[in-house]
Amino acid sequence: MKPAVIDNLQYVNWSETAFRQLRIGGVDAIHVTIAYHESFREAVLNVSRWNRWFEQYPDLIVRGTSGDCVRKAIETGRTAVFFGFQNPSPIEDDIGLIEVWHQLGIRFMQLTYNNQSLLATGCYEDDDTGLTRFGRQAVDEMNRVGLVIDMSHSGDRSTLEAIEHSSRPIAITHANPKWWHNALRNKSDEVLKALTGSGGMLGFSMYPHHLKDGTDCTLDSFCEMIAEAATRYGVENLGIGSDLCQDQPDSIVTWMRNGRWSKQMDYGEGSADQAGFPPQPDWFVDNRDMPNLSAGLLATGFSQTEVDAIMGENWLRFYDQSFGGAE
Amino acid sequence: MKPAVIDNLQYVNWSETAFRQLRIGGVDAIHVTIAYHESFREAVLNVSRWNRWFEQYPDLIVRGTSGDCVRKAIETGRTAVFFGFQNPSPIEDDIGLIEVWHQLGIRFMQLTYNNQSLLATGCYEDDDTGLTRFGRQAVDEMNRVGLVIDMSHSGDRSTLEAIEHSSRPIAITHANPKWWHNALRNKSDEVLKALTGSGGMLGFSMYPHHLKDGTDCTLDSFCEMIAEAATRYGVENLGIGSDLCQDQPDSIVTWMRNGRWSKQMDYGEGSADQAGFPPQPDWFVDNRDMPNLSAGLLATGFSQTEVDAIMGENWLRFYDQSFGGAE
Repeated sequence: MKPAVIDNLQYVNWSETAFRQLRIGGVDAIHVTIAYHESFREAVLNVSRWNRWFEQYPDLIVRGTSGDCVRKAIETGRTAVFFGFQNPSPIEDDIGLIEVWHQLGIRFMQLTYNNQSLLATGCYEDDDTGLTRFGRQAVDEMNRVGLVIDMSHSGDRSTLEAIEHSSRPIAITHANPKWWHNALRNKSDEVLKALTGSGGMLGFSMYPHHLKDGTDCTLDSFCEMIAEAATRYGVENLGIGSDLCQDQPDSIVTWMRNGRWSKQMDYGEGSADQAGFPPQPDWFVDNRDMPNLSAGLLATGFSQTEVDAIMGENWLRFYDQSFGGAE
Repeated sequence: MKPAVIDNLQYVNWSETAFRQLRIGGVDAIHVTIAYHESFREAVLNVSRWNRWFEQYPDLIVRGTSGDCVRKAIETGRTAVFFGFQNPSPIEDDIGLIEVWHQLGIRFMQLTYNNQSLLATGCYEDDDTGLTRFGRQAVDEMNRVGLVIDMSHSGDRSTLEAIEHSSRPIAITHANPKWWHNALRNKSDEVLKALTGSGGMLGFSMYPHHLKDGTDCTLDSFCEMIAEAATRYGVENLGIGSDLCQDQPDSIVTWMRNGRWSKQMDYGEGSADQAGFPPQPDWFVDNRDMPNLSAGLLATGFSQTEVDAIMGENWLRFYDQSFGGAE
C-alpha cells in the first residue's frame, strides 16, 4: 500500500469541489474541525451535516474513526474524514458527553480555544492557571475512551500540565515553533520538547499568521523549519496540520474569534486593517498543492522514508495508538 | 457456541442485582428501552447513564450494536445490551438525527407510542391515518442506516403501511396475538401475517396486561399460544420480547403513559383501581426465570432446535440482517 498522506487540521468551507481537490492532491485522510463555540446540541447538527456529505459523496469521502479507516480509504481511493473540536464547549459541563462524542466519531478535542474554558487556560489569557478540577477529570476520561487531547490554542502551563497529567501522548495539531516565528499561537521550545518527548505529535500549520513572513513565507523556509524541528524533536513526532481555511467568508473568522462571548470585535491574530482570513502562500492554496510539500521536504534533504513519515505515516501510527479505548 | 438467549424488550430499573440476574438466567442479549417521551437532549443523558454502567460492570454487561456483539458476549460470559426507543420523540423533527442515533447505538425505534406521532398513528387514537409524509421518509432513512422499525404500540393501518413501505423486515418487539387475548396492545391476525410474511419478527410479551388471565396466566397457556403462533406464522419469525418492567416505581408507569402530553391521568392498559405496574406471573418474575420459558416450550412439544430459535437464535439472525447499513 502507498504511504498515507494525512493533513491533521483543516477548516475548509466544504463542497464537492473541495472534496475533489482532496482526491487530486492525493490526501488520504484529514482531521476537520466541526466546532468552535457550539453547544452539544449545535455540534450534533454539524455531525449530521457531515453524515449527509458522506451519503452524497461516497466515492470521494468516508467517515474516519480508526487508523484502519485510512487504510481502507487508500484502498478505495477516497479520503477518510476525522472529526475534532477546537473547544470543549460541546461537552458543556458533563463528563459523560466525552464518551458520547467519541461514539459520534470525535477523535481530537482542544481543551481551550484561546480563552479560559472549564478545562484549562487558552493562549490569549493573561494568566494561565493550568488544568482545572474538571480539566483533570476530562483528561482522564479522554484517555479512557480514546479521544486525543489537542493543546494547539492553549497556554503554556496548561499545555505542560496536560502532557504531564495525560497517560497517553497528546497532540498540538496545528502550530509552529516560536523559535521560527514568534507568534502568540506558536509554541515554545520547552512545550515542544515536553510534547514530543512524551510521544506526542506536532502538526505544522500553513495558516499565514503562523508563518515567518506570513503569506510571503517561502516553501524553502517552511521546510527548513521542519528540518530544524526534526533535529530538535525527532522526525517521528512531526506531521502536517495545515489549518487550511479555504473558501470561508470572513464572517467565519469573526465567529471563530468572537463566538458569543464578546460584544466587542476581537481580531485574534489579525488586526483592524487585516480583519479577514489572510491569503495563503502560493505554494499551498488548496489540497491540490499537497505534493508541493513532499517535494519541498525532499529538496530540503529528508529521505523519502522521512518525507512519508512527516506527510502522513506518523499521524497514521498515532491514530492506531490513540483512538481505541484504554484497556 | 451455545445457542443465544435473547429477550428483545426489557424495561427494568437496572442495578447490579438486575445485571447479575441476567447472568444467572443465562440471558446473552437484551434490547432495553431508553426513551419513552424524551427529547434528543434528554435521551442522550440516558445513553450516557448506560455508558457509565458499561464502565462500572464490565464483567456483566457490554454494549451491543451487531449480532457479533451477542456472539462475543456469549464467549466472554456477559450480556450484550442493545438500545431502543418506544417513541420517535428523540429524533424530534430532524431526519438527520436517525443516523446520529444509529451512531449512538440505537437499533430499534417505534414509530409511535400509543399516541399520534410525527411519523404514524398510535394504537390508542380513534383514527389511524397511516404513515405521515415525514413517516415515509423516516422509514426510508431507518432502512438505509440499519435502525429497525418497531410497531408494537402502533395502530393497525400504520403498522400495515410500515410493513409495506419498509424495504427491510420490521419488528413488533413486544405484543401477543389478539386471538389469544383481545387487548388493545395485542395484534390482529392480519397484522401478524403481514409482519411475518415479510420476514418480520414478533416478540412475545409477558407484561400481564398482554396475557390471557393477566398475572394468573399459566406458563402452559403462554407456551400453547406460541405453538399456535408457530403454526400460523412459522417458528422462524418468533422470539421473546418480555416487556419486563422489574423494580420500577409506579411513578414510572405514569410517566410512560402520560409523558408531558396530558394534564389528566391516563391509565393506559391499567385502570383507576389498578393504576400501577401489575404483578408478574410467578413463572417469570425476573431474568432468573428465563429457563422456565425454554422448559415450557419444550414441554409444549417444540423440538430443542425450535426452542433455541424462539429463545434467541431467531433474533440473532434478525440482528445480523438488520443492523448494518443498506448497501
